[in-house]
Amino acid sequence: MQRKCLDGSICPVARSLDSIGDWWTLLIVRDAMLGVRRFGEFQRSLGLARNVLSVRLKKLVADGVMTLGPAADGTSYQEYVLTEKGEALLPVLVAMRQWGEQYLFEPGEPRQELVNRRSGKKLKRIRVRDEDGQESGVADLRLVTVA
Amino acid sequence: MQRKCLDGSICPVARSLDSIGDWWTLLIVRDAMLGVRRFGEFQRSLGLARNVLSVRLKKLVADGVMTLGPAADGTSYQEYVLTEKGEALLPVLVAMRQWGEQYLFEPGEPRQELVNRRSGKKLKRIRVRDEDGQESGVADLRLVTVA
Repeated sequence: MQRKCLDGSICPVARSLDSIGDWWTLLIVRDAMLGVRRFGEFQRSLGLARNVLSVRLKKLVADGVMTLGPAADGTSYQEYVLTEKGEALLPVLVAMRQWGEQYLFEPGEPRQELVNRRSGKKLKRIRVRDEDGQESGVADLRLVTVA
Repeated sequence: MQRKCLDGSICPVARSLDSIGDWWTLLIVRDAMLGVRRFGEFQRSLGLARNVLSVRLKKLVADGVMTLGPAADGTSYQEYVLTEKGEALLPVLVAMRQWGEQYLFEPGEPRQELVNRRSGKKLKRIRVRDEDGQESGVADLRLVTVA
């Protein structure tokens, strides 16, 4: 399907989706957050055709979400690493993960969950709050245009 | 592209993307949160072909993210309304919006922003925190499988 290009939209959701809205792209970012760095590892993890993966990784590097550089272990491999902009997608992925946990699994069904690496503690549920800390639902919000 | 079906994955991110990862689907949910309810309104807002929009809306209803019912004003229109499951996508869209605001706009470039309807206050930046309220970054997290 021909996608309408939304990178000039004044809506930040539309621009974000233009950059990282592709289904595979977000799974690549997820894998990168979990420590995957090499082309072959992404390929095995995602079960994705080489050409498709290659296009997605190139776009992520072009968009400044990942960088490509020599492997940290001194081997001749090249590694894809998230930039600060890429790591800043963590709240998007955690919010998506929590929605999936709540609505797309049966009780008792095995599922993966993120925990603190040291304490083993779970993550707090992500809530939308205004500057005063008041929780906001869909009905509490309206859209304004700022410059 | 043939998508790998991930609705049986144990990763909640993958399952979520299988349900709402399509680019247009998230923009439909965004519009619905802003009060769009009728087929023609979605079509005008998104500039999307009727057949494509129709498929996306049917999937959202089938997945329980939206319901289709008679118009609230008693006219013969049918309206698409977010369910509780659909409204629960708010943190995903706000996290995506904030990422876009931070990384995809030049300073001073006009953009849309969500504010509290009554107070006009902006939203707090969404952070990932563990159960103790400690902010967690990518390096602080690991994945476990729970049942």
